[in-house]
Amino acid sequence: MNLSKLKQTNIGESNTAGSVTDFRSLENVIVKKYGGTSVGSIERIESLADRLVRDIKGGQKPIVVASAMSGETNRLIGLAEQIDRDYRGPAYDMLIASGEQVSISLLAIALKKRGIKAQPLLAYQLGIRTDSVHAKARIKEIDGDFLLRLVSQGIVPIVAGFQGVDEEDNITTLGRGGSDTTAVALAAAIRQPGRPTSCEIFTDVPAVFTADPRLVPKAREIARISFDEMMEMAALGSKILHIRCVEIGAKYGIRIHVRSTFEEREGTWIVPEGEVLEQALVSSVTHDANTAVFKLFPVPAGPGFLAELFQTLATRGVVVDIITQSEAAEGQRIAFSVTKEDVPLTRQVLKEMIKSSTEVTLIENMAKISVVGVGMRNHPGVAARFFQILARHNIPVHIVTTSEIKISAVIDQNHLSTAATALHSEFSLDKTE
Amino acid sequence: MNLSKLKQTNIGESNTAGSVTDFRSLENVIVKKYGGTSVGSIERIESLADRLVRDIKGGQKPIVVASAMSGETNRLIGLAEQIDRDYRGPAYDMLIASGEQVSISLLAIALKKRGIKAQPLLAYQLGIRTDSVHAKARIKEIDGDFLLRLVSQGIVPIVAGFQGVDEEDNITTLGRGGSDTTAVALAAAIRQPGRPTSCEIFTDVPAVFTADPRLVPKAREIARISFDEMMEMAALGSKILHIRCVEIGAKYGIRIHVRSTFEEREGTWIVPEGEVLEQALVSSVTHDANTAVFKLFPVPAGPGFLAELFQTLATRGVVVDIITQSEAAEGQRIAFSVTKEDVPLTRQVLKEMIKSSTEVTLIENMAKISVVGVGMRNHPGVAARFFQILARHNIPVHIVTTSEIKISAVIDQNHLSTAATALHSEFSLDKTE
Repeated sequence: MNLSKLKQTNIGESNTAGSVTDFRSLENVIVKKYGGTSVGSIERIESLADRLVRDIKGGQKPIVVASAMSGETNRLIGLAEQIDRDYRGPAYDMLIASGEQVSISLLAIALKKRGIKAQPLLAYQLGIRTDSVHAKARIKEIDGDFLLRLVSQGIVPIVAGFQGVDEEDNITTLGRGGSDTTAVALAAAIRQPGRPTSCEIFTDVPAVFTADPRLVPKAREIARISFDEMMEMAALGSKILHIRCVEIGAKYGIRIHVRSTFEEREGTWIVPEGEVLEQALVSSVTHDANTAVFKLFPVPAGPGFLAELFQTLATRGVVVDIITQSEAAEGQRIAFSVTKEDVPLTRQVLKEMIKSSTEVTLIENMAKISVVGVGMRNHPGVAARFFQILARHNIPVHIVTTSEIKISAVIDQNHLSTAATALHSEFSLDKTE
Repeated sequence: MNLSKLKQTNIGESNTAGSVTDFRSLENVIVKKYGGTSVGSIERIESLADRLVRDIKGGQKPIVVASAMSGETNRLIGLAEQIDRDYRGPAYDMLIASGEQVSISLLAIALKKRGIKAQPLLAYQLGIRTDSVHAKARIKEIDGDFLLRLVSQGIVPIVAGFQGVDEEDNITTLGRGGSDTTAVALAAAIRQPGRPTSCEIFTDVPAVFTADPRLVPKAREIARISFDEMMEMAALGSKILHIRCVEIGAKYGIRIHVRSTFEEREGTWIVPEGEVLEQALVSSVTHDANTAVFKLFPVPAGPGFLAELFQTLATRGVVVDIITQSEAAEGQRIAFSVTKEDVPLTRQVLKEMIKSSTEVTLIENMAKISVVGVGMRNHPGVAARFFQILARHNIPVHIVTTSEIKISAVIDQNHLSTAATALHSEFSLDKTE
């Protein structure tokens, strides 16, 4: 992670002719991000505009980030895949970035109708610079000054989430859930010394839960959770927040408030670890129902092949999760897991690098189940309990990986529900009524 | 019209480090514009890609301009109008410009699949600078050098038609049919001294006709027509080409070839007047079935009002076509006509400028019928014949306007078909079989 180039505003510290931003006018600036369901229809956009008018009358100065209308990004991906299922590159990113262009324009029109000065903004206008890893780019720089100038003029910026531009001005996209990252990165770019900066992520769930309630009905809402735990949860398959978004929040101290678009009450605050008061041993059970495993046999000879393979995958933006390797008389055997969305790109890389003599197998019916908690740092023995629970329910574990604050296992998809329910209960996460 | 800032390439004239374009590699560069039906579905996009591959193998170096997939711009306008029927401004332009972003990305993916290096390009990437008259902006400048650099590297530029960016980097759009203008302006921006530059406009009709064949079944195809006549036809309601496109063609000597997407044969060439060999007295009968007339009574007192009204309409991009004015004891009466698409914006301007004591009436069931021909310059008496023909068919003429090479009359919409058929026949334009 390198956000060192993220510009910091020098509001109030200079009086040069170019800096006309009024420091006092920048109280109550808040970044508010709305997901696809919040802008999913004209009716939803109108009601979101009403809600923003209430916020503005209440004294807030919002900077709005919006996703594409729900279903739109999938529709666009579907069009691309009708032509070429495996292609990822600049044209793909330009295509799928058009969804946010539509939603922010419509929201701006709805605000203008209500007498609010709103300006829709695309990545190239805000200088949201990223690297060139298409479909999974990382933000390097944002022109926060420009945003604050608009706010100080009484304009509500409506920013297209999910997109950036690379060094050559080509549109890039940040991957699934990338609008969250846009929002937190904007909050980081406009942060001001001595003022806590926060970012609201409005979504179709009311909060972060101890597990996915569709899988574990007894899952509870979490009021506060640390950046580290949320980062693990995002990495392990929780769909609530994009991992990069939490990373940026942690690095720049941006408190993230995940809450419902449709209710006024508070949801979950993601905050520095010291601000989480009651710390459980395990704070959540997280899963990824769509893990895929690639197996290669025999691995092409020579010590350089695996290094080159994983280097290429990394360069193209594939996150390889777990790798196992074994030697036999017939040759070297390797397996690695990726998330479902990385399957096309992984297949493309393998097609380019593997000769016909190597057999490539893809297994798509795997799931990863994990427990996460900073409490594990000081309490050994969580791993032992984890395996005991799975064993008691006769669930075979294929691959395991651990870190200081999480334990993960790859299991068959059809054992997922049993495993999640059992772990959630045994680690005392079930809600009590 | 001011295209003085349109950059001209200095290829081959300098050897500075920045200029790496190879002059010899720029033979056979041609701008090819494809309308909405050419990219109207994935199947159409695939078959367009096949056709471009054939052109490239045949030695052409195409620069492609594409419209939005057919129906898409109307769908986007429909979304905006659900929120605010009358709004036009930056958010509207950003919204409707997204259609081309989708079609050029998909076409680029289809070409990449066929092994062609293609790059989709938006207005901000090409520096297509316009004024800030939203929904009807005029191109001022294009970075032709950048386009030619891509071509010299073997890359096929796929340019989003219809869009530009203003001085503040906001997206603008060029009005209905604006992609034609984009194409001819690109051809002007890349023209090279001593080489004739042409631009192909692929459309769903095979050529320009002497009248709209749906209205006049005996209409004939025109092989060659002068820029001046085509400009009048566009101004008078012919939907074949955007008027601005023909203006730029005339000013920079870009021969425009209008032809069918679905047939290989030639269509209509729009060329300088001297290159049209057989010049008829009247070359076409043109109509605008959707003329609207606004009437104001009484006009607010004071000499400045009308000047201010028409100035404001012009600034906002409304083209006022015909104006009539009369004085009576009760006050001043004025009527003016605009095309149907300008009705919302006109209504908005009137709403802002007119006090409640003035009655504003809108009549939408008018049509304008015109005959066009450079032959009229040397043959007086065409106007007399025009009125005789209409009188013989008992068609009342409400308003008339003429120029050196055209005569126009506003009539009731229900007389349109009779008038067009009669004029087409009397001026010897009917096809003979």
